Amino acid sequence: MSDPARPDPVVHATAAIVSQGDEIVLGQTLDTNSRALAGRLMDLGIVPVEHVSLPDDEAAIAACFARLSSSVDLILCTGGLGPTADDLTRAALARAMGRPLVEDARSLERIRAWFAGRGREMPEINRVQAMLPEGAAAIDNDHGTAPGIAARLGRADVFCLPGPPAELRPMVERFVAPVLRPPAGRTVRTGVVHTIGLGESDLASRLKNSPRGDLMERTRMPLVGTTASGGVVSARVRYEGPEPAERAGAIVAGLVAHVRDLAGAYAFASEGAPHESLPAAVIEALRRRGETLVVAESCTAGLLGSMIGDVPGASVVFLGGVITYHNRLKVELAGVEAGVLEGSGGARPPGAVSGACAEAMASGARARCGAGWALSVTGIAGPGGAVEGKPVGTVYIGIAGPTGVIAGGVSSRRFAMGGDRRAVREWSARSALGMLWLALVGEPAARMLRQVDEVG
Amino acid sequence: MSDPARPDPVVHATAAIVSQGDEIVLGQTLDTNSRALAGRLMDLGIVPVEHVSLPDDEAAIAACFARLSSSVDLILCTGGLGPTADDLTRAALARAMGRPLVEDARSLERIRAWFAGRGREMPEINRVQAMLPEGAAAIDNDHGTAPGIAARLGRADVFCLPGPPAELRPMVERFVAPVLRPPAGRTVRTGVVHTIGLGESDLASRLKNSPRGDLMERTRMPLVGTTASGGVVSARVRYEGPEPAERAGAIVAGLVAHVRDLAGAYAFASEGAPHESLPAAVIEALRRRGETLVVAESCTAGLLGSMIGDVPGASVVFLGGVITYHNRLKVELAGVEAGVLEGSGGARPPGAVSGACAEAMASGARARCGAGWALSVTGIAGPGGAVEGKPVGTVYIGIAGPTGVIAGGVSSRRFAMGGDRRAVREWSARSALGMLWLALVGEPAARMLRQVDEVG
Repeated sequence: MSDPARPDPVVHATAAIVSQGDEIVLGQTLDTNSRALAGRLMDLGIVPVEHVSLPDDEAAIAACFARLSSSVDLILCTGGLGPTADDLTRAALARAMGRPLVEDARSLERIRAWFAGRGREMPEINRVQAMLPEGAAAIDNDHGTAPGIAARLGRADVFCLPGPPAELRPMVERFVAPVLRPPAGRTVRTGVVHTIGLGESDLASRLKNSPRGDLMERTRMPLVGTTASGGVVSARVRYEGPEPAERAGAIVAGLVAHVRDLAGAYAFASEGAPHESLPAAVIEALRRRGETLVVAESCTAGLLGSMIGDVPGASVVFLGGVITYHNRLKVELAGVEAGVLEGSGGARPPGAVSGACAEAMASGARARCGAGWALSVTGIAGPGGAVEGKPVGTVYIGIAGPTGVIAGGVSSRRFAMGGDRRAVREWSARSALGMLWLALVGEPAARMLRQVDEVG
Repeated sequence: MSDPARPDPVVHATAAIVSQGDEIVLGQTLDTNSRALAGRLMDLGIVPVEHVSLPDDEAAIAACFARLSSSVDLILCTGGLGPTADDLTRAALARAMGRPLVEDARSLERIRAWFAGRGREMPEINRVQAMLPEGAAAIDNDHGTAPGIAARLGRADVFCLPGPPAELRPMVERFVAPVLRPPAGRTVRTGVVHTIGLGESDLASRLKNSPRGDLMERTRMPLVGTTASGGVVSARVRYEGPEPAERAGAIVAGLVAHVRDLAGAYAFASEGAPHESLPAAVIEALRRRGETLVVAESCTAGLLGSMIGDVPGASVVFLGGVITYHNRLKVELAGVEAGVLEGSGGARPPGAVSGACAEAMASGARARCGAGWALSVTGIAGPGGAVEGKPVGTVYIGIAGPTGVIAGGVSSRRFAMGGDRRAVREWSARSALGMLWLALVGEPAARMLRQVDEVG
């Protein structure tokens, strides 16, 4: 792939990732390749600085290659290598390089052999997949017909790779990753701390007011940033510098531990970055204590149970529970007393959306299912259902557990969730898990984001 | 938002979508906003021509805005509007516009009110969210603290929007979509037919062998394509051409009706494109019949109930149900006879993953909850749990209903689901809804994708 007329090959300090295809740009398909490639580059110490998705437009792809080739050292492009008229990556790269497309005899032979291995003759349409810009090199595809392409363009090395993940992943591991050249003097290491119950600004001010100084200051190394998603607020730590890998890892680990301390009980995970989910953390904490969990869900209608059941091995602690969407089932399945839901003798009852109902649901589910812990959710997810004093987003979460941890064995909190129906339900389920997390780490009274004081 | 010095505002023929954040570019977070925005623009007749993701780098974001502003009519940017030092979209836009940041009094008041409504004082750090480039306009955020920004840059209108989907979605619908101006001379109309229980190749061959010819041929207008996601296979119809809106709409509607005929009982929705979900179709069919539904879930652990509860107004027909993850709760909550789960006298029991258990769960839940219909799911979601003759992905779905529709009042099917734990659970929940759909449209025996015949 190297051009003998050029001097020493570049070092790959920065990279751009290009994904190709109308279905991506027009919003019919979610591009997951770019994220996967970015993570892989970071592992290698190469920093992605831009992702671009482009439609099936040869001129647009060629212009993008040309632009990026003067600003980054490495371009990884996925898609557009198929045999049909809308597969334009080969032609676009040739145009950007100012070279003609030529047929690669070895690639043609491999494509023919791929079909022969499946008892078929190569359709003539697939012949185009053996075409390469003059001066480029083919990359073997062991899992499909489209060879990849390696080429030099401006200061950048360009790798064009097939879109299907099952072809892309092995090609990257076998032929691309081994020839990438991260800067020798630079190591990249990342870490993360996930929290529940803290607002992003709360976490940020803890980071700013650290005894070590303002951790989020943009000139510090490691860099610390915050992100928020569905109630989980995360601090992300990134080191990029000259330290050797082991030392860089220790620096990041030390800072992660410090950030975790700053977040206190609200931090539920800090290792293994994106895989440590809140339900997984709760399940692990219950497993260590040898305790079990059930749910009683009204407005979340099973979402909380589903989040828990999504974790492999959840069955060690999760027994199940009841979905009491209709008030009658709150009584029949969770044992809520009818008087909580309906007034008698003119008395105004607490109603289905109340702390009393959330507590009765949790206590009832815990007792009926014979579990150590129960979480309950009842609220108004919207768009309809608001009543005076209880707007859409009003949610009560109940928790029942050992009296040694939860005073009286049961308690509840009122929340004012924001967003649409989906957001209210997701925040509610995550906040319920957060309440349990705080109880399990010995801070059952720690105030939570979106918690509001009971009125009247 | 318009600049009085400029002539008539542009028409929005083309758009670019920018997403902002280290976590996206470095591969820690999957960007789903860009896809959603692209689909929404297509609905409106505006063609996205590029997606870009950039890191927290003010100069890079500003340069990207400047580049795009000379090539597209519309830029939608998400993220980077939070209160912390790594939220740089405001400053980048100001830099690209060559204007200073100024404080917007109304936005500041709204942010203060947002905190006050939650019983808190606005942290000083959030004050920066009221800053806007001079000449830009704030867009109200009804679901969070960050206002959006509308500005003119070069030939493009720029909208900077918050990253959290729960804030983004309502802001787009309420404030952005209404002010976009698709070109008048080009009409884009789309339609869709969603099916459950058919494979993508089954649907494609019905489309290819239509009495009207090969509907999927790429030179036809409207274009017809198929996509598959989690068990739902959809035929998408898209018209793009010079016909006036009404005529284009009629062309698409006529073709959609024809495709729906080709798909037969498997088609569950065809109007209103992405909003007609399978649970919504099932709920509507039950509502028309005046019947109710409950669930009994083992491996899905609440996911089926959650999908149903996700539909606004589900409470008209959905009562709730039981999550019987642990075998003991299958007996205690759903009334499954212990003999189904445990052998006695040396007999080998059907076990928890069996048609007998699925049927007992459905019958038991229907009777105990007093519902017209019950759906049950029990299976092996993996990665562990496989037993001889029942590999990971083995799932039994039960349905109990009126004996006039379901012979004997209850039945079950065995499925072999593919993919990982999440995929098995999602396919299971959707297949359960599909079984109910087929029963409700009078085809309770129609064979379904991934259904397998019981062995032994």
